[in-house]
Amino acid sequence: MRLPLPLLALVCCALMARQHCAAAGKARHLRWEISNMFWSPDCEEKVVIGINGQFPGPTIRARAGDTVHVQLRNALHTEGVVIHWHGIRQIGTPWADGTAAISQCAINPEETFTYRFVVDKPGTYFYHGHYGMQRAAGLYGSLVVDVAEGEEEPFQYDGELNLLLSDWYHESIHTQMVALSSRPFRWIGEPQSLLINGRGQFNCSLAAAHTQGATNTQCAATAANTQCAPVVLPVQPNKTYRLRVASTTSLASLNLAIGNHKLTVVEADGNYVDPFVVDDIDLYSGDSYSVLLTTDQDTSSNYWVSVGVRGRLPKTAPALAVLNYRPNRASDLPALAPPVTPAWDDYGHSKAFTYRIRARAGTPPPPPTAARRIELLNTQNRMDGRIRWSINNVSMVLPATPYLGSLKMGLKSTLAAARPAETFSREYDVTLPPPNPNTTAGDNVYVLAHNTTVDVLLQNANALSRNVSEVHPWHLHGHDFWVLGYGDGAYRGDAADEARLNLRDPPLRNTAVIFPYGWTMLRFVADNPGVWAFHCHIEPHLHMGMGVIFAEAVDLVAKVPNEAVSCGATATALMAGGHL
Amino acid sequence: MRLPLPLLALVCCALMARQHCAAAGKARHLRWEISNMFWSPDCEEKVVIGINGQFPGPTIRARAGDTVHVQLRNALHTEGVVIHWHGIRQIGTPWADGTAAISQCAINPEETFTYRFVVDKPGTYFYHGHYGMQRAAGLYGSLVVDVAEGEEEPFQYDGELNLLLSDWYHESIHTQMVALSSRPFRWIGEPQSLLINGRGQFNCSLAAAHTQGATNTQCAATAANTQCAPVVLPVQPNKTYRLRVASTTSLASLNLAIGNHKLTVVEADGNYVDPFVVDDIDLYSGDSYSVLLTTDQDTSSNYWVSVGVRGRLPKTAPALAVLNYRPNRASDLPALAPPVTPAWDDYGHSKAFTYRIRARAGTPPPPPTAARRIELLNTQNRMDGRIRWSINNVSMVLPATPYLGSLKMGLKSTLAAARPAETFSREYDVTLPPPNPNTTAGDNVYVLAHNTTVDVLLQNANALSRNVSEVHPWHLHGHDFWVLGYGDGAYRGDAADEARLNLRDPPLRNTAVIFPYGWTMLRFVADNPGVWAFHCHIEPHLHMGMGVIFAEAVDLVAKVPNEAVSCGATATALMAGGHL
Repeated sequence: MRLPLPLLALVCCALMARQHCAAAGKARHLRWEISNMFWSPDCEEKVVIGINGQFPGPTIRARAGDTVHVQLRNALHTEGVVIHWHGIRQIGTPWADGTAAISQCAINPEETFTYRFVVDKPGTYFYHGHYGMQRAAGLYGSLVVDVAEGEEEPFQYDGELNLLLSDWYHESIHTQMVALSSRPFRWIGEPQSLLINGRGQFNCSLAAAHTQGATNTQCAATAANTQCAPVVLPVQPNKTYRLRVASTTSLASLNLAIGNHKLTVVEADGNYVDPFVVDDIDLYSGDSYSVLLTTDQDTSSNYWVSVGVRGRLPKTAPALAVLNYRPNRASDLPALAPPVTPAWDDYGHSKAFTYRIRARAGTPPPPPTAARRIELLNTQNRMDGRIRWSINNVSMVLPATPYLGSLKMGLKSTLAAARPAETFSREYDVTLPPPNPNTTAGDNVYVLAHNTTVDVLLQNANALSRNVSEVHPWHLHGHDFWVLGYGDGAYRGDAADEARLNLRDPPLRNTAVIFPYGWTMLRFVADNPGVWAFHCHIEPHLHMGMGVIFAEAVDLVAKVPNEAVSCGATATALMAGGHL
Repeated sequence: MRLPLPLLALVCCALMARQHCAAAGKARHLRWEISNMFWSPDCEEKVVIGINGQFPGPTIRARAGDTVHVQLRNALHTEGVVIHWHGIRQIGTPWADGTAAISQCAINPEETFTYRFVVDKPGTYFYHGHYGMQRAAGLYGSLVVDVAEGEEEPFQYDGELNLLLSDWYHESIHTQMVALSSRPFRWIGEPQSLLINGRGQFNCSLAAAHTQGATNTQCAATAANTQCAPVVLPVQPNKTYRLRVASTTSLASLNLAIGNHKLTVVEADGNYVDPFVVDDIDLYSGDSYSVLLTTDQDTSSNYWVSVGVRGRLPKTAPALAVLNYRPNRASDLPALAPPVTPAWDDYGHSKAFTYRIRARAGTPPPPPTAARRIELLNTQNRMDGRIRWSINNVSMVLPATPYLGSLKMGLKSTLAAARPAETFSREYDVTLPPPNPNTTAGDNVYVLAHNTTVDVLLQNANALSRNVSEVHPWHLHGHDFWVLGYGDGAYRGDAADEARLNLRDPPLRNTAVIFPYGWTMLRFVADNPGVWAFHCHIEPHLHMGMGVIFAEAVDLVAKVPNEAVSCGATATALMAGGHL
């Protein structure tokens, strides 16, 4: 990043008109080394990608307005790496978004790349690998941004607890990637475990041990392994805690509940929401929430925190943690059984939760109209004997040279010239498998003019098999969007559909789900020059092509640092004497 | 490669004064795609690195003087790749040697790099990955160079058979690399199987099935899997065959024998040797031989080809193939039991074989004296809680930016300035563990002036444990060397040692073994400008630092193609407007 920081802060403030612009903050310097290491996330030893010898990676804690500097050294043996700062908009620093083949070249082994970016907005975020399926190898951690010095959150709490949720496969990501690219196609199946803060227990149901009132010797043994010991959340009675919960799962959609405790949702994806009270919350991969929990229950007992699978026939045991009412011992088993996750296919429950999420008063409202609508039909297809996911019947394949550098340098030959379709046939029957199951690969981009207000319609459909339609959480890089509304079936744009759009207090988010056979309408302002991925956050789905690219006013991007373009055609052009 | 080919051929001819300079040959164009894929090398399905969907990779066949063009696309998901053409001297094309971090930048995923090089000398060669431990993931294949059109081999044969030998681990190379880099250190153990042309049978001893006279149902099942079915070598009676045999094992030293048949050794590492007759041959990793076999035995039966482990307590079952005397059926089990490998620690047998290898008359003799002697003590040490191999107490760690580009561009900051030691203390007791078990890492190089005649003394020693000294086959890139002699114990340079040096007809080779507690003396002429690795060919040993770098008259290297330097500090310098 070649901009001096004060200038950067100016750019930031200029571009973030809708948001509170924090006073110039501190610089937070971190040095990270990424390496493979043995670890036992669910008590079975495997290889994970760790940071500084830790799994999950270190939690980053900063204040709004701070600049985070992560000097990242790749100590993997033969693999490139990048890290995406999920939920950080990278205003003015699109090359620091950490998306391989999109915002930067993967960092080669033994190389160092420094991410420098402003965390401009308080909230609950996380970071993760964004190259191949490295996120699923454990390359993730929490990123928490507090309000700027002297400012206050719009709600009160006495303490904080952090829960980073994930899922875990015993097959290596290399084997998983080979499977997903194989002819015939091989599906990777369901994860073996769910993890809370990187810890789970495979083949050892703490809940079963509890409910059967029996001691489970295997579980006892696992408890001695600090890498997979159950997470304990110590709390004092009669206090209010802010639980920061985020999901970076590879596949699983989750539900979290805490025995006998209500949860008040106050934040989603780094944006305040109108507080509402629930018994449990759903989290799709890419989501983050803050919920307030008051320790107002019988203080003589501990309580289970339970995390279960949603939206897929659950073949993975729930993950459990202990809400430890002090001074009870952490090892005291709760008196109550763990909360039971709603039925996996109770979409009514999920929709009820999702529909309740509204922006907190004071959140900037969306522009009343959009200049452009991009309609994206999500289908499952076949290509070259493999199964792929497609958008308007194009399955995303990333180019050898990252988009940001290619587009900034005008290297037209690196990308397909064709413009992708902005819509799909209104005749498409979303309730049936695709009439044409075949798809083609594409790397072409949606080009957005600066400051355009864009609506995105995400339309779900039936997969290749009859009576199957899956949940897909779509995540947008570089922006928050307003979630205008959701509906079942095909979006028709009729009065009934229009009535489902909320222009008054839609929540601002960076991730939004499409429910089976349903649609979701988003709106955002293309006010952040850069090249931004917009994709299903399910790792194998992205790997199978479920995404698109938005190239936004690339001519307004400041000079891209050479280290972000030192590969492929951009490197060739620069080495031939070209200039960015 | 920016030199026009005729010019290249000239350079080649000018530089290879010692060797027959073939007439300008054909261009052989190959297009390869490297990808991970499922395969069952020993009937257990794992992930291998394949080429164009094949394992092992395609055999390259060319004539001396041809130029091979391999347009290599990396279709791995997140890993770089290179391919080394083992035994090809790359005269005038040092950037095509295929050594990551030495001769070129690893080829990034989705990138294409074209290797262009002259195969100037007939012989039996092979190629393999040379990045991380990718060779051990199955990235290898055969490279056979016939004599130039109109020329003849100096021996007669009726047909040819090709045997590429390797070993195979069930753990992925990623897990193996993590193990070798772990604290505490974890050794990867012995391979699960030996492979002949990429095929073996884990947990199914064909020999046992045979010798017990019983049908083994598991073996029967494996025979149906073409990926691991036993190799059949069809021959006609009373003919002479040239067996080309090469070993690209990760760890194992091998011995090959064929029931009741004598073998006449005629070629080693692409150089003719004075023919000699043996019952079996030893092959260390990196070796290649041609042996003549005459099918002069009882024609009513087939015969076993047997490959067993040498130099390590064998925990891996022998590999078997069938020498199928036509018109017997290939499935007819041989009447005789498979030949039994000599006792693993019968070094007398190994030395007897090795010492018999002499140059064929007409082979260029070595210069009578050397201008420089580099003495390299091989020790096992500890570093940062890990176990490493060291040379003169420095353990090789490769730099982020490949040597060839760094040195050519004079980027001093990329490499340590210190010159490595040219000798070691004569007081060092090679029969005991190192008195100082600690070592340090280094990336420094031996700088060789153009056309210097260099002697290299390789001195073996005791490892960290008492009474352990291992075999190490050392392979030199960019050159053949004369193997002047071998001895037991410490080289003293006294009359007895001098008497062991053969200046009359030492064999020319590219790989030479050091026996336990012994020494080996090599001589070569630094007549090939470039940067060349010289290292133990055992994959985990190289990964643990057992190698050195020779930088040879780098100022005389022609322009290094940009695609070989498009990473690290060379890319940075070039992108800043520098020029090679």
